Amino acid sequence: MGQAIPDQTVDTSNAPYVIVSSDTHAGLQCEDYRPYLDSALHAEFEDYVAERHAHRRLSEEVNAEFIEEWEGQNAEGLRGAYDPEVRDKELDADGVAGEVIFADGDAVTGQESPPFGAGLSAGQITDPRLAFGGARAHNRWLVEFCATNPPRRAGVALVPITHDVGEAVAEIEAVAGQPGIAGIMIPTMWHGFKPYGADHYDPVWAACAETGMVVHTHSGEADFTSYGDNVAMYVNEVPFWTHRALWQLLFSGKFDQFGGLRYAVVECGSYWVGDLLWKADVNFGASNKIKKMGSRMKGLISRLPSEYFGTNVFIGASTMSREEIRRRHVNGIDALMWGTDYPHPEGSWPHTVERLENDFRDVSIEDARKLLGLNAVECYGLDLDSLTEIAARIGPTPAQLHQDPELRTPPDATRTARWWMEEYNCELRY
Amino acid sequence: MGQAIPDQTVDTSNAPYVIVSSDTHAGLQCEDYRPYLDSALHAEFEDYVAERHAHRRLSEEVNAEFIEEWEGQNAEGLRGAYDPEVRDKELDADGVAGEVIFADGDAVTGQESPPFGAGLSAGQITDPRLAFGGARAHNRWLVEFCATNPPRRAGVALVPITHDVGEAVAEIEAVAGQPGIAGIMIPTMWHGFKPYGADHYDPVWAACAETGMVVHTHSGEADFTSYGDNVAMYVNEVPFWTHRALWQLLFSGKFDQFGGLRYAVVECGSYWVGDLLWKADVNFGASNKIKKMGSRMKGLISRLPSEYFGTNVFIGASTMSREEIRRRHVNGIDALMWGTDYPHPEGSWPHTVERLENDFRDVSIEDARKLLGLNAVECYGLDLDSLTEIAARIGPTPAQLHQDPELRTPPDATRTARWWMEEYNCELRY
Repeated sequence: MGQAIPDQTVDTSNAPYVIVSSDTHAGLQCEDYRPYLDSALHAEFEDYVAERHAHRRLSEEVNAEFIEEWEGQNAEGLRGAYDPEVRDKELDADGVAGEVIFADGDAVTGQESPPFGAGLSAGQITDPRLAFGGARAHNRWLVEFCATNPPRRAGVALVPITHDVGEAVAEIEAVAGQPGIAGIMIPTMWHGFKPYGADHYDPVWAACAETGMVVHTHSGEADFTSYGDNVAMYVNEVPFWTHRALWQLLFSGKFDQFGGLRYAVVECGSYWVGDLLWKADVNFGASNKIKKMGSRMKGLISRLPSEYFGTNVFIGASTMSREEIRRRHVNGIDALMWGTDYPHPEGSWPHTVERLENDFRDVSIEDARKLLGLNAVECYGLDLDSLTEIAARIGPTPAQLHQDPELRTPPDATRTARWWMEEYNCELRY
Repeated sequence: MGQAIPDQTVDTSNAPYVIVSSDTHAGLQCEDYRPYLDSALHAEFEDYVAERHAHRRLSEEVNAEFIEEWEGQNAEGLRGAYDPEVRDKELDADGVAGEVIFADGDAVTGQESPPFGAGLSAGQITDPRLAFGGARAHNRWLVEFCATNPPRRAGVALVPITHDVGEAVAEIEAVAGQPGIAGIMIPTMWHGFKPYGADHYDPVWAACAETGMVVHTHSGEADFTSYGDNVAMYVNEVPFWTHRALWQLLFSGKFDQFGGLRYAVVECGSYWVGDLLWKADVNFGASNKIKKMGSRMKGLISRLPSEYFGTNVFIGASTMSREEIRRRHVNGIDALMWGTDYPHPEGSWPHTVERLENDFRDVSIEDARKLLGLNAVECYGLDLDSLTEIAARIGPTPAQLHQDPELRTPPDATRTARWWMEEYNCELRY
């Protein structure tokens, strides 16, 4: 973790981009998880599989046209959710060298969710046996899957830390160090359990810091009871529920307490970052404005909140909008990580290169290298040499993205973008 | 409600500003609410008063220096929380013609909270008898208080709608039409009760639309169980919890279903508005991007989400930061309302005019008139003639705020600021 990146960061040549998708998904067809699941849970598993199949039938009823089109046009590529050979072919065609892999390959009808919904729906499981059993089944499979091509894969294991901290630490220790395993995903919401800023979870953060496992929350869950069937309410709130854990960890001082602890919030956009950093830096940093509040954070955080971004906090921003790309310096040029969301339909696959050609033409090569890959290499400690070799074969070049090779990022781009530094006289210490 | 504002909107003369503070607070010393409270609740009230006094002693222990300084320097002005004569003198000195009045005059040690915390802490009350009893006590006093100078006051009555819709409607009908009563405040959070988008509350919205009562949520509550004593977590999240009701009402179509229904979110800043409008317009408006989602809102909302701002949705933005003033066109030049937060220490009182002198110099006079008063006049249907008379005596002039009389707001300022209209090809229908 945290290897130095010497030359690539200022490589403005036309060398192909080392693209790392910070957000992909993989998983078996649900019934195929059976051999990976403790046999004591097989009876409950049959019910789960039956429920998944019923869910599939319901989805087909309400959404027939879209499902048929999506699955018809992408039949081969969708098999890459569990077939490593197909997967590498799809990544190649999409120009993607490396990937950070989450659970739940099928976002359309949910047929590739780990047992009992232990992936993106982990917070919904109330029985700890099922929560850990389902997570372990996926992790066992994930270890095998990532071993098929470790330089290219950064697998994220499932660890339902809310249910049992000791068991969580044991699972972290079991997966850490396996080839191609790079982090853990915790339930996005803590529900009735202790909030993530509580000391209760300290052994988890300690284990992650020590083993270099990056902690993640990934979008999916939200306060469903408040929305009924209103999709707009869900979409409006889901970023809040996804990045909530970030502020719990940051404000409770976990990044100071556990040196090297890293956290990434995934598929949650990045548009909300800048404003929350402004507010946090002014209210809780080395601000002259609200001395009283700043002093109440003394001993908890040792830097301005924005200074944790790009060192401890990363943003798996998936397929950024053009506006989010324009805001890259306020949101954190060292923290943002592009992601394709393969093989989900809301992502850029199988048209990632076209998307980049459209959206990156006004970005400096130097910035694009960070957003598209180098920040992920830094966050996950990936093998840059191997990825560069792959990229040499498949990565799009700056010329292909219509970029201007003369365009440079001004050295004070971050300071200029973070207008509050000067306006509120915040002290910048990096 | 909703009277036409003919000339003032383009009045770029040096006439004094009609300032309406969209956020002030008033309330009796807690024990003085006794005569306004149903006698059946007097026993419980004694416990409440004792608890408040204990809270005062605790505050004095941990925060002695600040309390002594604040209360010492402002002893006379703070009495304006309940003394109408003092209050008018303070408003005069602050350049403020009219005001929108919420409960809880004392934000420092909580000595002016309505019985049982029925003001800004209403959502914390679990017993409906206490919730409605406390609210009614405050409302009875508020009606008397606003009657001391109705053109100048817009009182906001307390209505704990979560506990009983029928009782809520009866209370709305009791206060509506009283001189100087302009709206109701509902509990900021619905906790275990039905969310505000549920049809369950329709009789409340119907009564408010019919009587012209503006519905409010005001900052204060948040998910306290998740913060422990970490003030940063609270401050970071409190805007979400305060404006959450806005999206419930908007996305459930209440502004279409109940013609003329108006809602204002108060003391919650405004920095979050623009980005959420971008997202909402693109995802749920007449967007070309996500047809599927747009179609799921059909029949619920009839306009782009941003088009409800300034007609049905208003932002009691209190003492806006300079950045929020700069963002006035993206956030809604017809929706934003300045507020002093008198007599709370986090507001601009007793230095409002100096604050305006500092922060409004680059703003066109036309825009400043809206932010400082005319939007509130429109939202609450205030008596502009009477307020203009008061302002002629006490209001600061554009020259006093160092404004350039030649500066004009471009006619396409909103369209330009809302960059997503063009980039996502949203249809703009106003």
